[in-house]
Amino acid sequence: MANLVPFWLLVSAILAPFVGANWNILRQKMNNNLDHVVADDALKIYCESWRVNVEVNNVRGFEVVPQECINHIKKYMTSSQYIADSERAIEEVQLYLTTCCSLQGDGTDAWIFDVDDTLLSNIPFYKKHDFGGEKLNETAIEEWMKSSKAPALEHTLKLFNLIRDKGIKIFLISSRRENLRSSTVDNLIQVGYHGWSALTLRGLEDEGKEVQKYKIEARQRLVNEGYHIWGIVGDQWSSFEGLPTPNRRFKLPNSMYYVA
Amino acid sequence: MANLVPFWLLVSAILAPFVGANWNILRQKMNNNLDHVVADDALKIYCESWRVNVEVNNVRGFEVVPQECINHIKKYMTSSQYIADSERAIEEVQLYLTTCCSLQGDGTDAWIFDVDDTLLSNIPFYKKHDFGGEKLNETAIEEWMKSSKAPALEHTLKLFNLIRDKGIKIFLISSRRENLRSSTVDNLIQVGYHGWSALTLRGLEDEGKEVQKYKIEARQRLVNEGYHIWGIVGDQWSSFEGLPTPNRRFKLPNSMYYVA
Repeated sequence: MANLVPFWLLVSAILAPFVGANWNILRQKMNNNLDHVVADDALKIYCESWRVNVEVNNVRGFEVVPQECINHIKKYMTSSQYIADSERAIEEVQLYLTTCCSLQGDGTDAWIFDVDDTLLSNIPFYKKHDFGGEKLNETAIEEWMKSSKAPALEHTLKLFNLIRDKGIKIFLISSRRENLRSSTVDNLIQVGYHGWSALTLRGLEDEGKEVQKYKIEARQRLVNEGYHIWGIVGDQWSSFEGLPTPNRRFKLPNSMYYVA
Repeated sequence: MANLVPFWLLVSAILAPFVGANWNILRQKMNNNLDHVVADDALKIYCESWRVNVEVNNVRGFEVVPQECINHIKKYMTSSQYIADSERAIEEVQLYLTTCCSLQGDGTDAWIFDVDDTLLSNIPFYKKHDFGGEKLNETAIEEWMKSSKAPALEHTLKLFNLIRDKGIKIFLISSRRENLRSSTVDNLIQVGYHGWSALTLRGLEDEGKEVQKYKIEARQRLVNEGYHIWGIVGDQWSSFEGLPTPNRRFKLPNSMYYVA
């Protein structure tokens, strides 16, 4: 191998300038990448803090997802993390149900579900509308709702069945308008929901009313009729806030839109 | 260069078995790493879903952080994300303060703060106690609190000053016990807090009472005295839940412990 050494030296000598140049380019690229990584990290942290502050209801009333966070929200809403977060919430409901309720068993036990992004997923719609980065077009979303094509959130469907099979009456209180009743019912049935006791939708008298107030009134009617509301599962704080309160409320993740 | 070609072939032929062997080792290593990555990812997703479900109060009443998530919570509580999440919450308070309140200006405007992990950080204590993975030792934490060494949460300190300077009276309602009064006051002053109106601590009559109930009673007393509670900043849901409610509540992140 002794005769190889000078040859390797020769090769090294020939290649050195190119390697040097490449090294500089490489270093430059690495630095650029590092800048991107640092900027990407900062943006990721920023958008994640926006998202979690939406989840705990510190950030309220946003009309659109901040433009610089569209990609982050898209990633989250289509991630295993979103599924895991939702499933964990549902598991906590199941845990609560094993111990919580001295059910009356006389038909007055009640549970409330939201419809959108609680029973049915609007992610296919929001995929086409920047995951909430686009200002909501009422006509477009009602078009989508009329198509009855929203898939079920599978973990919520299982919970729905569990609650119904316990003899608890299920009330769906949605901010959808009355004109969407048949499409909504069709959609729910097609993806496997059946056996709810009532579906409350927004009538003409609720137009212009805040959703939170409309939902409070709907709960109040249930209480007036003698129902005991053991829990609410929803993706919006406007489904929980205000009196009457249920025994427990369970928040599903959703940072694509805010319903006041 | 023509005479080099057979030489390269020769070198390749000599090195091939070693490269092959290395490649196999490398591939093995990569596969092992991949297994770890997959397992690490699954655990990360699991623990993150636990954490966010704590934040929105779906997961309640835990005595310790799940053992497999100690590392995740440690990472989070010492991360830029924790700082960013807290700062974002505080920024939302500031935003709210610019528009929210038709302040009475007659000394009845009130704001409530938690003490632990809201004004003062207990992270130095929990660093030594597995970030909540160890069951809380009352004696140990009171020892820590008596040392008056908790640092300020800097972003909350700024907010505290802002609110005080607006002429809003600040009430600190803490689940710390009365025997910690002088250590708590010393600690608060040392890190820069001054000018609060009252510090409410748990007296003998509150022993064995749920913190949520104790805090409700403290708020009720304020309301009875004619105060208008514009907001509460805290890290525990037991600081917000129940009547009387403030105009707004702001949840700071904390998944190290749960106060019911």
